Amino acid sequence: MEDARIARVLENLDGMGLGQMLVCDPTSIRYLTGYYTFPYERFLGLYLSRNAEPTLFANVLFPDATPCCDHVVTFADTDDPMRLVADVMDHDAPLGVDKDLAARWLLPLRDMQAAKGFQLASKAVDDARSIKDAHELDLMRAASATNDEAMGWLVDQLHVGVTEIEIAEGLVGEYRRLGAQDNSFTPIVSFGANPADPHHEPDGTKLRERDLVLFDVGCLRDSYCSDMTRTFFWGGEPSDHEREVYECVRRANEAAEAIVSPGVTFAEIDLTARHIIEDAGYGEYFTHRLGHQIGLQDHEPGDVSSTHDEPVRAGMCFSIEPGIYLPGEMGVRIEDLLIVREDGCEVMNSYPKDLTVLGA
Amino acid sequence: MEDARIARVLENLDGMGLGQMLVCDPTSIRYLTGYYTFPYERFLGLYLSRNAEPTLFANVLFPDATPCCDHVVTFADTDDPMRLVADVMDHDAPLGVDKDLAARWLLPLRDMQAAKGFQLASKAVDDARSIKDAHELDLMRAASATNDEAMGWLVDQLHVGVTEIEIAEGLVGEYRRLGAQDNSFTPIVSFGANPADPHHEPDGTKLRERDLVLFDVGCLRDSYCSDMTRTFFWGGEPSDHEREVYECVRRANEAAEAIVSPGVTFAEIDLTARHIIEDAGYGEYFTHRLGHQIGLQDHEPGDVSSTHDEPVRAGMCFSIEPGIYLPGEMGVRIEDLLIVREDGCEVMNSYPKDLTVLGA
Repeated sequence: MEDARIARVLENLDGMGLGQMLVCDPTSIRYLTGYYTFPYERFLGLYLSRNAEPTLFANVLFPDATPCCDHVVTFADTDDPMRLVADVMDHDAPLGVDKDLAARWLLPLRDMQAAKGFQLASKAVDDARSIKDAHELDLMRAASATNDEAMGWLVDQLHVGVTEIEIAEGLVGEYRRLGAQDNSFTPIVSFGANPADPHHEPDGTKLRERDLVLFDVGCLRDSYCSDMTRTFFWGGEPSDHEREVYECVRRANEAAEAIVSPGVTFAEIDLTARHIIEDAGYGEYFTHRLGHQIGLQDHEPGDVSSTHDEPVRAGMCFSIEPGIYLPGEMGVRIEDLLIVREDGCEVMNSYPKDLTVLGA
Repeated sequence: MEDARIARVLENLDGMGLGQMLVCDPTSIRYLTGYYTFPYERFLGLYLSRNAEPTLFANVLFPDATPCCDHVVTFADTDDPMRLVADVMDHDAPLGVDKDLAARWLLPLRDMQAAKGFQLASKAVDDARSIKDAHELDLMRAASATNDEAMGWLVDQLHVGVTEIEIAEGLVGEYRRLGAQDNSFTPIVSFGANPADPHHEPDGTKLRERDLVLFDVGCLRDSYCSDMTRTFFWGGEPSDHEREVYECVRRANEAAEAIVSPGVTFAEIDLTARHIIEDAGYGEYFTHRLGHQIGLQDHEPGDVSSTHDEPVRAGMCFSIEPGIYLPGEMGVRIEDLLIVREDGCEVMNSYPKDLTVLGA
């Protein structure tokens, strides 16, 4: 059990007027207990209370949790796990609910009147997870250093005729050679006009002369994630228009990174990048938030968006990833991860962002 | 849109006293509309009503749904999708809720009083999905035929010193060579005593002389899943004890398959296998349900367990997978997929189940 982290969550819950919570996000359970399993359609939950010891509820088919948790309640497929969970709850107090708790579990708890009301409370856990400690920051740096190295490998794979999917599927092997365990998300490899779709899935598209190339990739290393995007020109100098789009995105990326410091709001960071893109006339083609927090998961709550008015705090890690997507024509995105520090910020990725022509 | 399937779901809802439902399982949405995307933390939902056209709610970042759906409401990351969903609902009628709807969406709908009560209603969709039509059954057969072929490839990979993970990671390439698209779940490859953990994750364990070998694998072919388990003896004849365990599991598998016919209950099928294992003295080592339904997903609702008293119906597909797991010592599981037919059942897997010694 990670007692200090659990204490922080209970304190956060107290600030929300809650004395008990049911956590079910498997990654949050790992963060709080050290125990990890993915439950698929079965139930896994951690009950936290200011009046009782943390209790883990796990199907007997899951790996044994007792090395991590003192109080484990197991059940079989033929049991009703919500009956067991309800048994330990304070029925006269409201329950904080994990935002991921599925209706299949929440509605039976409501029907049993297992608590006096149900209230979203993931913020209590997410807030603790978003401020990384020194050890976590070292792991974040190591994952991003591996990603910088892997970007060099990706560039080396490019040649006319290679397909997006070939490169995307080879990446996990390179990550393993570099000491990481896996991709942190399905790699995005996009050629030609495909980068115009920000979430393009790698397919059989072949690299041709004078293509744009976009890599949005990340590894999982010692349970922590990296995530970086670079866009390249292949086989010849870009047109003036392509150069203008690229440089606009690069300036947006660098300007946003430059203002990150404790107390600046997420919205201010987003708008710094967004205004640069809007002023260049491409505002409607920057269709997503500027970034997302990251850690044990590639996307963690608390996005870098124009509507998120909270200030950033030291120890937070998030992405800065402006993009311009011109449908059917081209797309450019440039993404780094950074750590907020007391004195500003530390950009974890060092792979160059200057406009680069490859294979010419 | 799959109008006939939607009509079946609305009819099922009617039988539950419901006139509207919010479906959010991406696979169910594919089944009902032909549109598929995985939304991660963003919202994707299909609103069904007996009084209104089906309406899909999708983030603008998702692939365009208009080729599949006439009524699509899109929203950006900065919008509140639940406000948009609530706008189309009948606030004076109860809402059927997908069992997978996360608390982050359900609790705001409740707070907005978007409907007059919320009730689990996935059974209306799951019931439609569980009865496969002729085209779906052909796709199920094709996926299992590919899996039979792949089992031969797996056996060919065995040699002393090969690791579980090497074989597990190579399997997807073989599936693609055979015309499938992907694994339908993370392959289980277990050597030695590892099969004693029914959900063992393949690792660096090397094959040694006189090991047990268990393969539990499946492919995704044209959106439908296969799933089969075979257990082999490597490098020498099994002991009498090993042979007894193997034959007990094989008899349990075959006896359960032999009684499947419309009208027999899932519980009767489970108990047929379970009693054989109990009578041999291994009851406590058969720790899971006998099987699960399968189709667009590897695990679909309606399990083959001792507490599921509903009768099976023609067109259903499910697994029969008894196992005996002796901790630290050995494990055997034998699994086939079958289709319930009007006149009995059709076992889709034809890979032999006779006790087989390899590499000797």
